[in-house]
Amino acid sequence: MTPGKKIPIFVDGVVLNGPQTDVKAGEKFVEEACRLIMEEVVLKATDVNEKVCEWQPPEQLRQLLDLEMRDTGESQDKLLKLCQDVIHFSVKTNHPRFFNQLYAGLDYYSLAARIITEALNPSIYTYEVSPVFLLVEEAVLKKMIECVGWKEGDGIFNPGGSVSNMCAMNLARYRHCPDIKEKGLSGLPRLILFTSAECHYSMKKAASFLGIGTQNVYFVETDGRGKMIPEDLEKQIWQARQEGAVPFLVCATSGTTVLGAFDPLDEIAEVCERHGLWLHVDASWGGSALVSRKHRRLLHGIHRADSVAWNPHKMLMAGIQCSALLVKDKSDLLKKCYSAKATYLFQQDKFYDVSYDTGDKSIQCSRRPDAFKFWMTWKALGTSGLEERVNRAFALSRYLVDEIKKREGFKLLMEPEYTNVCFWYIPPSLREMEEGPEFWRKLSLRTVQFICRGFLLERNADSHFALRNWKTFPSVLA
Amino acid sequence: MTPGKKIPIFVDGVVLNGPQTDVKAGEKFVEEACRLIMEEVVLKATDVNEKVCEWQPPEQLRQLLDLEMRDTGESQDKLLKLCQDVIHFSVKTNHPRFFNQLYAGLDYYSLAARIITEALNPSIYTYEVSPVFLLVEEAVLKKMIECVGWKEGDGIFNPGGSVSNMCAMNLARYRHCPDIKEKGLSGLPRLILFTSAECHYSMKKAASFLGIGTQNVYFVETDGRGKMIPEDLEKQIWQARQEGAVPFLVCATSGTTVLGAFDPLDEIAEVCERHGLWLHVDASWGGSALVSRKHRRLLHGIHRADSVAWNPHKMLMAGIQCSALLVKDKSDLLKKCYSAKATYLFQQDKFYDVSYDTGDKSIQCSRRPDAFKFWMTWKALGTSGLEERVNRAFALSRYLVDEIKKREGFKLLMEPEYTNVCFWYIPPSLREMEEGPEFWRKLSLRTVQFICRGFLLERNADSHFALRNWKTFPSVLA
Repeated sequence: MTPGKKIPIFVDGVVLNGPQTDVKAGEKFVEEACRLIMEEVVLKATDVNEKVCEWQPPEQLRQLLDLEMRDTGESQDKLLKLCQDVIHFSVKTNHPRFFNQLYAGLDYYSLAARIITEALNPSIYTYEVSPVFLLVEEAVLKKMIECVGWKEGDGIFNPGGSVSNMCAMNLARYRHCPDIKEKGLSGLPRLILFTSAECHYSMKKAASFLGIGTQNVYFVETDGRGKMIPEDLEKQIWQARQEGAVPFLVCATSGTTVLGAFDPLDEIAEVCERHGLWLHVDASWGGSALVSRKHRRLLHGIHRADSVAWNPHKMLMAGIQCSALLVKDKSDLLKKCYSAKATYLFQQDKFYDVSYDTGDKSIQCSRRPDAFKFWMTWKALGTSGLEERVNRAFALSRYLVDEIKKREGFKLLMEPEYTNVCFWYIPPSLREMEEGPEFWRKLSLRTVQFICRGFLLERNADSHFALRNWKTFPSVLA
Repeated sequence: MTPGKKIPIFVDGVVLNGPQTDVKAGEKFVEEACRLIMEEVVLKATDVNEKVCEWQPPEQLRQLLDLEMRDTGESQDKLLKLCQDVIHFSVKTNHPRFFNQLYAGLDYYSLAARIITEALNPSIYTYEVSPVFLLVEEAVLKKMIECVGWKEGDGIFNPGGSVSNMCAMNLARYRHCPDIKEKGLSGLPRLILFTSAECHYSMKKAASFLGIGTQNVYFVETDGRGKMIPEDLEKQIWQARQEGAVPFLVCATSGTTVLGAFDPLDEIAEVCERHGLWLHVDASWGGSALVSRKHRRLLHGIHRADSVAWNPHKMLMAGIQCSALLVKDKSDLLKKCYSAKATYLFQQDKFYDVSYDTGDKSIQCSRRPDAFKFWMTWKALGTSGLEERVNRAFALSRYLVDEIKKREGFKLLMEPEYTNVCFWYIPPSLREMEEGPEFWRKLSLRTVQFICRGFLLERNADSHFALRNWKTFPSVLA
């Protein structure tokens, strides 16, 4: 048979060398969609006069969108209209007044890297299939490890901080008792981990997922600022031992979700060393302070941790998701713990150094190159630019605190140590009332507690930003 | 204080209302990067004359790339050059001759959706922050559930099939014994799950991660085609019970990684019903056959499963990653199993129906809208277009099989039932030798076994594709 595109090859009713998809139409669609995205998302991202969200409740939004997938495809024009609708009704997380979550804003360099990623569509199990992205991940991990203060280490990017925390928990368990990988927990005494009452909810999710059980997460008391009390940690370790249970892990938090509290790592490390426990630091939110010479003291002692979770997708704006699990160990513990040695993927007789095939250190098989977007931002801004970003977030929080203090009807919960600013709005009807139990009962019925995180504030700070934003929640401001 | 951009506001040495990043430069960079991506990736994706990969071993590639992150940022020109280098040295998974993995090719519509996602940067925990994407996920899950053959069901998108399989395993364990969520596995008898010897390696990873232990994965024998033997399954269930262990789950595979085998679901479902075991089907690879009326018989009986993992990022080209875990239960088992009820995120007194806040069904906190890219493809092609895509992959495999049979020096391992085609290349020195033990010993020393999956083949099929591709691996063709 002569190869060639002219002679049709039929198999099972399919013309193999016939047109499959309309390539030209597809290319044109991508081009037009990019133009739309540039206009409707990127160029409007910094425009404070645009809406954060065109809010519609679920039932109405379902009417407004054409969600149904049909037997035949839609026209290009219809598809572009759909793209427009998706953008129109989506929350603009890039908007200067998007305050809802632990991230916000648009980093142009990370965005470019993310579009490259989508176009190349890599999966980073092995070097042969993702050479560039695996070297980039190696370089980024090395720099992050330096920031933590370790001379060397290991690590892996995971799909989010919750997964990084889970992976750390599993790693600590493996170090404690490698047999569990094969034999499981059945028949063993209860394993106990300790974390503060203010920790992220992923600790409980992880304990349940890993078969440890949420009851075996012992919550250590916190002080008035939400920081773990090391004395109570030690007390609870002794107590767990007395119960016949087996402590194996302490999870400290650097930057709690609500108060932005930093656990005292040095003192906690002392306790861990005394008891031979793995110290994991969930710095998913607070880790970014490590790049600021001025503010990294908040994480003093982090170099004594055995593992650290840190999400550059939060304050450093790398894009959802970008979460590193960093590990101090250099004896290949991560690989020993996670590897399943699938022979179809991780052959040992390749024509290059297979230590670059790092995919077997992950719980995932297909894995996205999340380090790449952070690398591009770091390249674009330099370490000094990242530092400025963090310092600015701190300064914005400080500014908000000062404004809250000046303004009637606002009550600061406490002086922040990080960029979380917690405060109450006091409705006019309660402003003259004494701050007794009745006041607090009424307040929590009538209004909500606000948390603003500095870096979320309008980039061109404006003393009215807060009040203007709150007008969008009239129901709570009665 | 008068709001305004002219009066500088200084806090902690930071000018709050001064320029933070150069917005115009950033926008220009995204525009130029998009142009580059369009030219170097999208427009070249179908060009068979381009290289699949500009191969460099790790040490050399590290020299060629400027990986280091410095204290100060790089110029825009330098950054664009970096983007160019990243693209140049990356494997083109869109290339017609990219055969390495279980996915390939470029879907223009999914790509557009992925770029929208990156620009909007959503995270889909709650409706208020991701209204469109949560409705899209609901719509896509509903259609996929229909494809499985259930009237209703539940589900969640996960970062890959390995995670979907893990989540199914945890869900089956929760159904078996809800107390494990709180109490853990300590002190319980061994829990046992059954899967075939040909299953994906994520089963072992999951068993180890969930604290079940890899030894408690019982591997059921397979027949000559790699299909689970139901009689051996039943035998092993009895055996586990005799050992005092507790069977709780059977994981069948629809489309094994190497042979593309489909376990006999109907017979396995019989066994599961008889023994009260959860049936999970790992259809990460084979699930796509469900959209083909001609080929969905391969998954006959799948409607009897309790859960199904299915990755549209494989044959349906939705982009890495797109993996759904589908669940038959409608009693909110998924939510009960996974919820941690974080009060800062999943408040119950919102101003809309909070059943749309589906994030608490996931092991993740931040979560990407992976359903959206598949939705866009489905909208663009229609169900009939997806079906064509699948039928074409089958036809291409059939064509490859016919060519292998015709050609000297090639030996088909077996007639495929899916799109995996396994064959040997026989070097000239072995072609006259008898097929005894000595032949096989020498063959496996000298060459490798090839697996081609139909959909990976050049879209304009050409009878020489295979030989040309193999020329890039001269070492194995001696």
